[in-house]
Amino acid sequence: MIQRLCVIGIGLIGGSVALAARAQGLCREVVAADREEEALRQAEKCGVIDRGYRDLSEAARGADAVVIATPVGRMTAVFEALKPVWSTRAFYTDVGSTKASVVQAAESVFGRVPENFVPAHPIAGRELSGVAAALADLFTGKKVILTPLPHTDVRVLERVRVFWQRLGAEVHDMSVAHHDHVLAATSHLPHVIAYCLTHLLGRKDEKDEIFQYAAGGFRDFSRIAGSCPVMWADICLANRDEILKLLRQFEGELQRFDELLSRGDRQAIHDYFAEARTARQRFLDRHS
Amino acid sequence: MIQRLCVIGIGLIGGSVALAARAQGLCREVVAADREEEALRQAEKCGVIDRGYRDLSEAARGADAVVIATPVGRMTAVFEALKPVWSTRAFYTDVGSTKASVVQAAESVFGRVPENFVPAHPIAGRELSGVAAALADLFTGKKVILTPLPHTDVRVLERVRVFWQRLGAEVHDMSVAHHDHVLAATSHLPHVIAYCLTHLLGRKDEKDEIFQYAAGGFRDFSRIAGSCPVMWADICLANRDEILKLLRQFEGELQRFDELLSRGDRQAIHDYFAEARTARQRFLDRHS
Repeated sequence: MIQRLCVIGIGLIGGSVALAARAQGLCREVVAADREEEALRQAEKCGVIDRGYRDLSEAARGADAVVIATPVGRMTAVFEALKPVWSTRAFYTDVGSTKASVVQAAESVFGRVPENFVPAHPIAGRELSGVAAALADLFTGKKVILTPLPHTDVRVLERVRVFWQRLGAEVHDMSVAHHDHVLAATSHLPHVIAYCLTHLLGRKDEKDEIFQYAAGGFRDFSRIAGSCPVMWADICLANRDEILKLLRQFEGELQRFDELLSRGDRQAIHDYFAEARTARQRFLDRHS
Repeated sequence: MIQRLCVIGIGLIGGSVALAARAQGLCREVVAADREEEALRQAEKCGVIDRGYRDLSEAARGADAVVIATPVGRMTAVFEALKPVWSTRAFYTDVGSTKASVVQAAESVFGRVPENFVPAHPIAGRELSGVAAALADLFTGKKVILTPLPHTDVRVLERVRVFWQRLGAEVHDMSVAHHDHVLAATSHLPHVIAYCLTHLLGRKDEKDEIFQYAAGGFRDFSRIAGSCPVMWADICLANRDEILKLLRQFEGELQRFDELLSRGDRQAIHDYFAEARTARQRFLDRHS
């Protein structure tokens, strides 16, 4: 049993970690640190946490489990504030959507990544932000990717694995670089595309109708364009090289399709669509 | 009460029209025409229709309500087959995702669009195809856009409006050109983007992992890339000019974002995302 769980950054994900840990009876108390007084008071009021602190070191002092749930752009500052109160008896994990940048932030502060910090990425979220959107079952049945380093303490790794499993998640391991490579494709590029399409269509004169008739196409795109801009600006910068590489490949892909459509090649367009559908179907068949 | 409803093309949409009309008690019998014997037998066996015909004219003869639910590329051939049995006492409507091409097909066969044909587009669908995927409530609460012409018979227009309303839909009117302009943005371009992204990622070595970790981003994109390739090749060709115009605007949009990300301008990236989110939120606030 965790005596004191400390959640740093009490937004959608941090709040859901707190709620889930409480619901599962994993900890005696939950404290949180956040720069916004308002978020802390709201989290206390809704019973998400026992106590909130503006001062990060104060919140983390004495905790035996620390979950860092700030936007990835804040990680260096968070590690700096944690450093004076870092405890070798506690385990530390995070929820950042990019992992190389988190590892770099830890290295820049500690020299090398502490053995009791296990970088993690829960693939769960909502298009809503803030602690009010937190859910006790946000991680249920969702995947959490751990990216331990070669020198990560294996006992801590197992504690962190069990922690996420008990929050309801299916836990997978990956290398840091591989995580960022795969997630650029599955998550980061799609978010960029959704933001770009929503930005383009949201500037049009007929934008009201476009949103109104958005069922079955643009609706899904605009939904993920409702995600938190601070968080996604951080992710884009943290995984810039992978995202730019894919973005350019995607631009090339659109140009290839543009050519097929410009010359009105029905068979080639049909085959192109059929190939995309087959790629998806092959995967679904294998995993159903 | 409709005596005989004839559905031409008994796939997902045609099958759902038949099921919904029966469930609502709108017609005494439902017949269907389809080029595929297999689809007809399946529709008969599942009780979706009373009788199926390979011969389109035979199916439509004597029907007082005809719904054309073939891919839009087939419309000219369908109108040609309907012409000898066209009845001034019946009403005719369709379900095509593009409307200018349907109107052109009717004009090419009849000289001008018959007064008792009301072009329609139900904004409803699934990523599954075929009559087995048909649902009696597919249109419940969904929008159907009618694009009547200046010379469309107003009594027929009202019959067709009531028909779609009784299938559960919310019916809106639009001009043909405006429909194609708006739908290129809300539906056609998003489908093209989804197909292109799925094609690109489906060719990658790590494609299995990409599909596996697709939650919350690529999942929505790949879902609509499961749509029927024949239908979507037809739509792209039928609304080619509008789609190409938007596709190029979107390519320009990606290039603008590429520049922001390349120069690592956090504030500009944040503002760009925030603007997209605001455009969506403004719409949701107004319509909630």
